[in-house]
Order: sequence, then C-alpha cells, then structure tokens
Amino acid sequence: MPSQSEKKGKLYIVGIGPGSVEQLTVHARDVILNADYVLGNDTYLDQIEELLTTQNIYRSSMGKEVDRAKEAVKLAENNVAVMVSGGDANVYGMAGIVIEVAESNNLDVEIEVVPGVTAMLASASVLGAPVVVDAATISLSDLLTPWEVIEKRLSAAADAGFIISLYNPKSRQRTSNFERAIEIIRKFREDSVPVGLVKNALRGDEQEYIVTTLGEVLEYNDWVDMRTAIVICNSDSRIWNSPNGDKIITPRGYHRKYEY
Amino acid sequence: MPSQSEKKGKLYIVGIGPGSVEQLTVHARDVILNADYVLGNDTYLDQIEELLTTQNIYRSSMGKEVDRAKEAVKLAENNVAVMVSGGDANVYGMAGIVIEVAESNNLDVEIEVVPGVTAMLASASVLGAPVVVDAATISLSDLLTPWEVIEKRLSAAADAGFIISLYNPKSRQRTSNFERAIEIIRKFREDSVPVGLVKNALRGDEQEYIVTTLGEVLEYNDWVDMRTAIVICNSDSRIWNSPNGDKIITPRGYHRKYEY
Repeated sequence: MPSQSEKKGKLYIVGIGPGSVEQLTVHARDVILNADYVLGNDTYLDQIEELLTTQNIYRSSMGKEVDRAKEAVKLAENNVAVMVSGGDANVYGMAGIVIEVAESNNLDVEIEVVPGVTAMLASASVLGAPVVVDAATISLSDLLTPWEVIEKRLSAAADAGFIISLYNPKSRQRTSNFERAIEIIRKFREDSVPVGLVKNALRGDEQEYIVTTLGEVLEYNDWVDMRTAIVICNSDSRIWNSPNGDKIITPRGYHRKYEY
Repeated sequence: MPSQSEKKGKLYIVGIGPGSVEQLTVHARDVILNADYVLGNDTYLDQIEELLTTQNIYRSSMGKEVDRAKEAVKLAENNVAVMVSGGDANVYGMAGIVIEVAESNNLDVEIEVVPGVTAMLASASVLGAPVVVDAATISLSDLLTPWEVIEKRLSAAADAGFIISLYNPKSRQRTSNFERAIEIIRKFREDSVPVGLVKNALRGDEQEYIVTTLGEVLEYNDWVDMRTAIVICNSDSRIWNSPNGDKIITPRGYHRKYEY
C-alpha cells in the first residue's frame, strides 16, 4: 500500500452516453464506481444514480461548468476525481473546459478522457442507418458561438452533402434557431430528404421518435425541445416503412457494386 | 417457455467500439453474450474473443460485407443474430448494408441497432479535448464514394471551421489520398493548426499517438496506415505540453465569458 504522502490523484472526464446506465461503456462505469469524487450537474448525476454509492458527490447546476471544472481540478491533485459529461466527453462535453482549467493550473496528475455514445450515434441507432456516410455535427446554441458562424457551417454542410446532426436545437432563450437552421438547409436540399427527430434516445420508455422529411419537419417544431436530437439526411437517403416501425436508410453505395 | 413454433428471431447490429472489451457499452456486451449467432469479420471477432463462448460464430473476411449481411438477415428470421461492426454501427459501419438487405427481404422481425464509440470519439479522448465544437467525419476511401465528392467535402468542412476527423486514410490500394486530403485542407487552414494522429486508440499497449501541426503532419505520412484516426483542428485549437504528455485543446468559448 502506498503511504498517504505517496498518494497521487487522477482526473477523469467521463462521457456517460445518452442517459441510461446500460449505455455507458464498461470502462466508464468502472471508473465511476471506483472514484473518490464524482462531479456533475443534476441531470447527468440523476442518470447514473444507481452507480453512486460510497463516492463523494459534487452537484452543481447547468451554467456552472467553469466552477465545477475548477473544483474537479483541485480535487484531482490528491484524489481520484471524475467529472461526468452527458453523451461523449468531447462532443459539446466537459473535456474542453476541464482540460483548459487543468492547463491554467498546470495540473501535474494523469488526465484520462473516457469516451461515450454521443447523441448523434444514439439517435442514429434509433432511426436505423441514417449516418453511415460522411456526417457533420452542428450545435444551434449561439451562447458560445456567433450565429453567423453557425449559419456558415449549416450552409457548407448542406451544400457538400454531409448528413447533418443538430445538437441543442432549442432552449428557453432560443426558440427560433431550429426553424432558421431548417430554412437554411432547405436552400440546398430537396423537401423529400428524410429527417429523424429523437427525444430521450435509448432512455427506455421515455424515448420517442418521428421520421419525417425536410419539407414537413417544421410541422413538428413545437415538439422539438432541448432534449431532441435531429438527423437531416441527404438525397441518397430513404425511408423504409418496415413491419416493425419506420427506419431511415442512407445507402453506403454498395448497390453500385453488388446485387442483393 | 415459448414453444419452438412461437420462437421469433431478432436482428442486432452492434457497434463494438475501438477494439477492447472494456470500451463496449454494457448493453452491447450483454447483447453479444446472449446471441444465438454472432457474425463479423475476423478483425472485429478477434477483438471480442473473450465474449464468444457458446454462440454460433459466422466469420467472413473484409470485402464480404454483402454476403455477411444476407446471412445475418436469413438467420434472424428464427434466431437472435448479432452482426458486429467496428466502432459505431452507423458511422461507416454495418447498420447500412444490413438494414438495406433486411428491407429488400422485407424482414419481419425486430431490428435493433446498438451504438458504440466511433473512432472520432476514441481518438479525441486520447488527444484530450480536440473535438468539443462542431465537427465533420470524412472517409478518404474512394471505393464507394467518388473522389470529387470527398474533395468537395474536405474543402467545405475546412472552409467552415469544422474540426475534421478523417477515417480510412489509407489502404494498400490508396496510398496517396491522405496526402491529397492534407493539401486540400491546407488551402483553408494555417500550418500552425494542431493535428492528432492516433493508431489503435484505447487498445492498451498497442495504442500510439502523435501530436503535430497541419504544416508538419506529412512528415509522418509513412506512419499513417489504415488503422490510424486523424483529427485536424481549427485555428482556435492549441497544444498543451502537459507534465503528463501532449494534449490538444479546442476552446469551447468559455474564455470569452469567464475567467479561470
């Protein structure tokens, strides 16, 4: 056993996936179970409640990311500290701000980022196979990114044929960004292009989804909220009304080479 | 117990993540453990070998994706059949071709896609926090996508400031696509932009990575192979030479609002 003076901390930033414990990676689950401290906002800590037993818990509310990151870096000097992040730790997740704070403190302990299933992948799995080709993720939150930049990215991605996965489509403050984004994409894509909307992806009975088209998606504008992931397909994509529910398929291109 | 005649199959397409069993989701692992049949190519089946005990195994080689998909759809009519896919089941994964074949057979059993950690997320976690903002995935394989389309996507993503994650940078047949892609991106981005190269991400001792810049990345051209994931950052990104190894940070933009 190392003596107390030899004890050294470690800082983990862990992506917990879409929000049910079975969708964590085995490693993410084990890291959380063995932590001294687990930090996160209420929403994400509630999603992994069954894993929180003997660890010390540091809860903070949304919008307090910087304070939480500072606390995690301080604790990690002498403890195993885990910052949880919704979805993946990188994609719009906590890895950025935590490592920025670690850098500014020149933190000298090991930092490990543990990846998780991000909303694009969770929602794609619910919809079938919409995202099997080149894809772009775009957040519609203009809190940290100017709207002009978001608009340029929407246009570029739509024009170049990327499957587009929209994050943060709405908040209480931003109710029109989703509609504006759809109108931009419609300048480049036909109304028949399939669109999938997924709420609470892979969270058991809470999950709901809608398969529609670019021309009709704004009919569901009121249904879309901050927990909705949106997948906008390209002109190769199609909807299969399968005996077990609607699915979206974006062909990879095998049909140009094989028969089936 | 249901009688034999009531028995109905189910078709799973399961993303197994970057290639070590602890990086599977808990659900993906459980689905594989409880399958009647597990289908996949040698590379992916070898990565989950410790989970393959009593299941029937159907191995096939790379390039035989269509045949394997047909077999999975046939088996799923009366069995629990699992097609494994490297990384995520959607992102350049097997969900597309399997569901296409299911559609063409009008398969009437439940189909469940199980997401996994795709290479962009695995490599980002190794590098630190390069992918915390809008990102694009682009495959450099021109087997199923014309090179002109790939070129247009590279230009669009580079011009609009997306973090760019390159998949399939090389194969025995395509040795120059990686170099061509870098030259296209350099038209839009400064040579100082950080670039991360990760080989065998999160596969224990096999993992290797290089942190470099866009101006110097082609010095590592010979090191890049088909198992290498590449993350090309934007002009906001920076390299932190931390006491515990080089990391890439792309600031999310908190620094414009907070001090730390």
